[in-house]
Amino acid sequence: MKILVINCGSSSVKYQLIDMSNEEVLAHGLVERIGIQGSILTQKVEGRDKYIIETPMENHKFAIKLVLDALVDEKNGVIKSMDEINAVGHRVVHGGEKYSQSVIIDENVMKELEACVKLAPLHNPPNIVGINACKALMPNVPMVAVFDTAFHQTMPEKAYMYAIPYEMYEKHGVRKYGFHGTSHRYVSSEVAKTMGKDLKDLKIITCHLGNGGSLAAIKNGECIDTSMGFTPLDGVVMGTRSGSIDPAVVLYMATDLGYSVDEINSILNKKSGVLGLSGISSDFRDLQDGLEKGNERATLALEVFRYSVKKQIGAYIAAMNGVDVIVFTAGLGENSVPNRKAILNGLEYLGIELDEERNDTYGVTKKISKDSSKVDVYVVPTNEELVIARDTLGLIK
Amino acid sequence: MKILVINCGSSSVKYQLIDMSNEEVLAHGLVERIGIQGSILTQKVEGRDKYIIETPMENHKFAIKLVLDALVDEKNGVIKSMDEINAVGHRVVHGGEKYSQSVIIDENVMKELEACVKLAPLHNPPNIVGINACKALMPNVPMVAVFDTAFHQTMPEKAYMYAIPYEMYEKHGVRKYGFHGTSHRYVSSEVAKTMGKDLKDLKIITCHLGNGGSLAAIKNGECIDTSMGFTPLDGVVMGTRSGSIDPAVVLYMATDLGYSVDEINSILNKKSGVLGLSGISSDFRDLQDGLEKGNERATLALEVFRYSVKKQIGAYIAAMNGVDVIVFTAGLGENSVPNRKAILNGLEYLGIELDEERNDTYGVTKKISKDSSKVDVYVVPTNEELVIARDTLGLIK
Repeated sequence: MKILVINCGSSSVKYQLIDMSNEEVLAHGLVERIGIQGSILTQKVEGRDKYIIETPMENHKFAIKLVLDALVDEKNGVIKSMDEINAVGHRVVHGGEKYSQSVIIDENVMKELEACVKLAPLHNPPNIVGINACKALMPNVPMVAVFDTAFHQTMPEKAYMYAIPYEMYEKHGVRKYGFHGTSHRYVSSEVAKTMGKDLKDLKIITCHLGNGGSLAAIKNGECIDTSMGFTPLDGVVMGTRSGSIDPAVVLYMATDLGYSVDEINSILNKKSGVLGLSGISSDFRDLQDGLEKGNERATLALEVFRYSVKKQIGAYIAAMNGVDVIVFTAGLGENSVPNRKAILNGLEYLGIELDEERNDTYGVTKKISKDSSKVDVYVVPTNEELVIARDTLGLIK
Repeated sequence: MKILVINCGSSSVKYQLIDMSNEEVLAHGLVERIGIQGSILTQKVEGRDKYIIETPMENHKFAIKLVLDALVDEKNGVIKSMDEINAVGHRVVHGGEKYSQSVIIDENVMKELEACVKLAPLHNPPNIVGINACKALMPNVPMVAVFDTAFHQTMPEKAYMYAIPYEMYEKHGVRKYGFHGTSHRYVSSEVAKTMGKDLKDLKIITCHLGNGGSLAAIKNGECIDTSMGFTPLDGVVMGTRSGSIDPAVVLYMATDLGYSVDEINSILNKKSGVLGLSGISSDFRDLQDGLEKGNERATLALEVFRYSVKKQIGAYIAAMNGVDVIVFTAGLGENSVPNRKAILNGLEYLGIELDEERNDTYGVTKKISKDSSKVDVYVVPTNEELVIARDTLGLIK
């Protein structure tokens, strides 16, 4: 059983072909600059050179056709025929309140995905385009949608409701949805396995920290709160996103500073976060360099980021009346020794003691807290593609 | 030494005349509906009937003239002549970054207050009007400004900076200022005294919960963080204010829902919070009635409010690596038994154990945690007027 995992962005397609008999990644690749000059497909297969195709790609359908060609390519491919692809699993950002689990895609699901476009105008349209392209190219292959929001649908009302007029929720769907759900689900499940414990017996805080970042509070296997909200702009400080700010700042930017709503949207999503504070970079490695060289603004940006994560951890410990394990994942969470150290520094009152030696860990599953620490801390590499493939397999079986 | 404390709102004046020899309140009163039909002054003196004046009041100057008349009134007054007023202490909402302490008002201070109007367009103008009215009526009496923001000026940069482009701070003063500072300062100092401890040795979380609400984290006597931000809209859920929400919700209301910026401002400040969620009332007593009668929306509103305070407490425990005492103050904090109970319920992991019997407390200073509780919890009635009078006395001496 081989499953193709597809993750479409506005001008990109990420993919993996996974053999589910042993969960081996046969090939993975990335198509970039779809519809833009310089379109390029890069495919990687373990033990081989990169396979690169540079050719104009007008749209996602053409790009996905090239992906399929690359997978069956006589020299560079990994399967003999498209028929070997048993199913396709699609990452879909927003499933609204409709989907708390992955689902086989049919006409009704497509309608629901369209209905969610207003909630995720940047993310859901390329997901839909990708699904349609795959359906056109592989009309008889079952397709599954795996939602970023689904895992968070267990949140209680008190966690997902904003304190704004109720009709904003009732009529317009304004509430906290949360994102990165596939990742939070995966690493929470992995850490329980690694600890040899039942997920149902644990209070877990998962910190998915990449260029975007979110935390989730997971109690007895269910997400009870998460830091991203109505959109991925909410929550902790990120690479280019502000995270939570006084909503009056948005109004002040519109009235007193004369920015248009579009401009504010762009500022808060693309020019804020550690980039906006530092004025240097959204890349946390650049900022760490800056900090080590005494750059004040890089230092400030990192301090504000770390402090926001630290406070979020405290908030979720209060929400769950405790925590058994804290998990760091995604690019920054898996690899940034100084950020993990600074975030967890001075949390002994909460039972958290980092082991500095163990913290020297990059991208592998490992306990990084001291044995004396009441709370375990782990690094667990995320693998959203594997979750998508597993969900797909489970549904088509 | 007698000090008049003045707190001007857009159409109101609250006042107290305090004899500083024993800090006795000689008279206190409220003028309402200034410049609106139905202007009314109500003055209260311990042991006497209310003294009420109903007469058209065109402006604050006229209203304050009536206040002075009421204070010296032969039958209803408490002093013989205006000359007995040695100084006036004014509550001023916003002191920007300039004032970390109270200050004697001179020409330069007036200019600074004017400069802060852009940061507090609703609050500073009536404060300025009130000061000018008092100066005109009592030209030789020293005046002191006591700022709501001053106590929070000790916050470190990582706590007060939003992760937005640095120039928003540098050029436009967009940062967290915090409010209710006079109250947080007073109750933190009072609780230390009550505990027989030095403020400098304590980690304190003060919860000022009224129709507006904010929490402060106070370490070694200095505020290191607070939940209100650039404006009093930020932070925990309030009576009619949303508190922190995804800033993208503001943008969504503008683009997709077609609200003007003014309308959004009004919705988030006046129609949100527990009023917006419940659709019933911004009065927490009404909601508690609703909850007890099984009203779902009243219950939801209270749960969302309580949960936001609970998480803020957790965040500040993380920020300070512990807490020695949590203080509840202001109308709701001092008097709402069920809200205090629900906020503190399930925080044993953090060392917090409420004593249900002791929690049956209304508006008096009292310890309400169990003796076994690692963290003390107190109710401490706030007294912003007394702080204003004390600061005024200290400065004019």
